[in-house]
Amino acid sequence: MRTLKLTIAYDGTRFVGWQRQAEGESIQGLLEDALAKFEGSRVTVHGAGRTDAGVHALGQTASVQLACRHDVVTLTRAINAHLPEDVRVLAVEEAASDFHARFSARRKTYRYRIRNTPVADPFDRAYVWHIPEPLDVGAMREAAATVVGTHDFAAFQSAGGETNGTVRTVWQSEVAGDTAGLVTYEITGDGFLRHMVRALIGTLVEIGRGWRPSSGMIALLRGSTRGDAGPTAPPQGLVLVRVDYH
Amino acid sequence: MRTLKLTIAYDGTRFVGWQRQAEGESIQGLLEDALAKFEGSRVTVHGAGRTDAGVHALGQTASVQLACRHDVVTLTRAINAHLPEDVRVLAVEEAASDFHARFSARRKTYRYRIRNTPVADPFDRAYVWHIPEPLDVGAMREAAATVVGTHDFAAFQSAGGETNGTVRTVWQSEVAGDTAGLVTYEITGDGFLRHMVRALIGTLVEIGRGWRPSSGMIALLRGSTRGDAGPTAPPQGLVLVRVDYH
Repeated sequence: MRTLKLTIAYDGTRFVGWQRQAEGESIQGLLEDALAKFEGSRVTVHGAGRTDAGVHALGQTASVQLACRHDVVTLTRAINAHLPEDVRVLAVEEAASDFHARFSARRKTYRYRIRNTPVADPFDRAYVWHIPEPLDVGAMREAAATVVGTHDFAAFQSAGGETNGTVRTVWQSEVAGDTAGLVTYEITGDGFLRHMVRALIGTLVEIGRGWRPSSGMIALLRGSTRGDAGPTAPPQGLVLVRVDYH
Repeated sequence: MRTLKLTIAYDGTRFVGWQRQAEGESIQGLLEDALAKFEGSRVTVHGAGRTDAGVHALGQTASVQLACRHDVVTLTRAINAHLPEDVRVLAVEEAASDFHARFSARRKTYRYRIRNTPVADPFDRAYVWHIPEPLDVGAMREAAATVVGTHDFAAFQSAGGETNGTVRTVWQSEVAGDTAGLVTYEITGDGFLRHMVRALIGTLVEIGRGWRPSSGMIALLRGSTRGDAGPTAPPQGLVLVRVDYH
């Protein structure tokens, strides 16, 4: 058996999420079904992160063990031929036999985009959270910067998440605005709790609206409860950008 | 009656085009239906350009005469409330009584985008023509530059177009490539024949593939027949960017 690393982009709009579910189409399910066609038997694909329904990926990573001997270029083309257009395998690489997309991951980077204009843009409605009321991007930027470091993110975890603690390390946490009213948040961390990025965004938006002070984020990073932080932002603004292994 | 100028953006994916048809949803039809709700009677909306099925707009312009007295900000909000999310009125402005979106237009700018990468991007499949084989962008750029000027574009007109001659003036005609494999064509002219931009693109792509020399464009601009030029490129790569009136 060989171990392969797959890099995958998908438009999450119509999927139940990364993970295979009893009902509905998932990215994992589509990949497993496509690979089973070459392998002649069922295969299991492990993803680096379980993106939720409606969440997108530019660089999701997955690992899989296969017996088939196609070279990686042929494999990329063949897998894509069996996938719908909204899911694309960007690259297939040979990996060490102990490589596991989830357990070997060191850092993940997510991006969240808000369209902060009075009128929504018809082209990105499936890829942004449209907020027509003006946001104080400076206050959001200040608050986002305080997220960098090792903190207890319990206030930003939805029920149903995994249980290996709520302490995570964040290396980058940046809000940027542009002149076209697009507000972009980027966060890089060693791991993310369930709905953590979306709960951070829900809180940052409350700061941007002036409902909380920009200094209010820090108090939430010492193990508060979920109810203390802002709501979970809608999924379509979120993209898994990149997974790093070194 | 007051005359209003509307600036409209739309994702053309699911529409039969700008113009109202017997069957299917059109942008013109949606706007006329939305405006009739305030006006209390049927209205006619004139568009600057009749974009085809699947073609998008960032800045389509339309004119309409209304009796209602709402201010333009209220009107913008009210019209949008009656439109689906893939059509947005970006601005409503008071215009001179003789303003007509089509007859007053001086210049229109269209953009066409090609995704020239081995693997398609799942996020822009509705907004680009995906061509996996490598294109010679330099040859396309040279050929595109020869389109600038006043020419007979008969070779680039589909049957069923309007009949006020086939001579048009083009001020800008530029191909640009980026490192991510996106090839963008932008053209500004005083008017466009039916399918003209898409036929130019179909021809430029044949030049990019090496099937025609980059010097081959010039000969087609002296009143050749449609069969001499390349095929009509697919609609989803095309966007009406801007209409100028001065």
